[in-house]
Amino acid sequence: MNDQSTETKAATRERIVEAARDLFFKQGYVATGVAQILKVSNANSGSLYYFFPSKEDLLVAVLEKYQTLLEPRVLKPAFERSDDPIEKLFAVLEGYRLLLEATDFDLGCPIGNLALEVSNSQPAARRLIIENFKAWCDAIRRLIEDAADRLPRDVEADALATHVLATMEGSVMLARAYRSFEPFDQAINQLKDYIVRLTRERSRRIKKRRR
Amino acid sequence: MNDQSTETKAATRERIVEAARDLFFKQGYVATGVAQILKVSNANSGSLYYFFPSKEDLLVAVLEKYQTLLEPRVLKPAFERSDDPIEKLFAVLEGYRLLLEATDFDLGCPIGNLALEVSNSQPAARRLIIENFKAWCDAIRRLIEDAADRLPRDVEADALATHVLATMEGSVMLARAYRSFEPFDQAINQLKDYIVRLTRERSRRIKKRRR
Repeated sequence: MNDQSTETKAATRERIVEAARDLFFKQGYVATGVAQILKVSNANSGSLYYFFPSKEDLLVAVLEKYQTLLEPRVLKPAFERSDDPIEKLFAVLEGYRLLLEATDFDLGCPIGNLALEVSNSQPAARRLIIENFKAWCDAIRRLIEDAADRLPRDVEADALATHVLATMEGSVMLARAYRSFEPFDQAINQLKDYIVRLTRERSRRIKKRRR
Repeated sequence: MNDQSTETKAATRERIVEAARDLFFKQGYVATGVAQILKVSNANSGSLYYFFPSKEDLLVAVLEKYQTLLEPRVLKPAFERSDDPIEKLFAVLEGYRLLLEATDFDLGCPIGNLALEVSNSQPAARRLIIENFKAWCDAIRRLIEDAADRLPRDVEADALATHVLATMEGSVMLARAYRSFEPFDQAINQLKDYIVRLTRERSRRIKKRRR
């Protein structure tokens, strides 16, 4: 195999993955047929089955792609908006709000959608969904750890990060169902209220000690 | 139409709705075919199309059924476990944990699943999904109002209820993806921590006033 054909093969594979990623995101995994992926990616069925013998193999590749996109697409744009770790955390959540706004509530969190669609019968895909969630939580946990001096000492960064993820997923779900920001903003503002109260509690304790 | 045939018709309709409800819950709306609903409900296609000209009509009937089940299936069993409104709230969330446990993480919240599957092209179903969410939130809001004397005065019951719903939906999603209670328990315990801190803040303010 020469370099030319290697490059073409990689490009074809990438085109198929991107078409599948887009269609799974917009329509769901179950609702997307292989024929539609072929059409959108402009690939022939031989190429598709060469790279992805089953639809689940393609789902795995899509989920691997999402892992590589977390940093440049989700974290970086949010982290650029502030130096403050707590503001960075809420900028990540704001990113989902911007996506809902840009797509008129059509698109939310691609991993969350797939999580509810993928069953125990797809263990490889499920493992990658978990890895995507874990990478997201790790990024949020690091922000919480960076803000540790402003939070009560008994706050567990890991558990709080999971709570942030659960709240985000639920908020995106409600925004999409209601086609309104009202439930999203209510739920996220309440999370803000929680974190503000945590920081107030810490500063109260510090003041007490100083008295 | 005599009474006998009315009863039979109602029974047939009910059998179709229950079969669809069960299949949509276990497999999802998109993944469930009308042929399978006919088979499970043991109905003929004439009856099905008589009651439900489209699959969306059937989805609407399923969502109407869920509205009638909120009180007896979700609220009543939880409310029986305690007289304390905050304990009642967490007993409702515990109900979802019990369902996840009983079904080995196969079944979570039926409305949450459908919310991510139903798009803007199904306005009647979407309206009923919102109504189901709103009824759930109303029940939680009433519990928060019942506990108002133990919470800071600036807590908005409505927003906090929406936050509880978002956290529940996200937690159920994570439990099902991980097939583990760890993320569910982390997220829900964090919500408990929030509410405990809210009650502590109120009692601290009351003590201050008494000094």
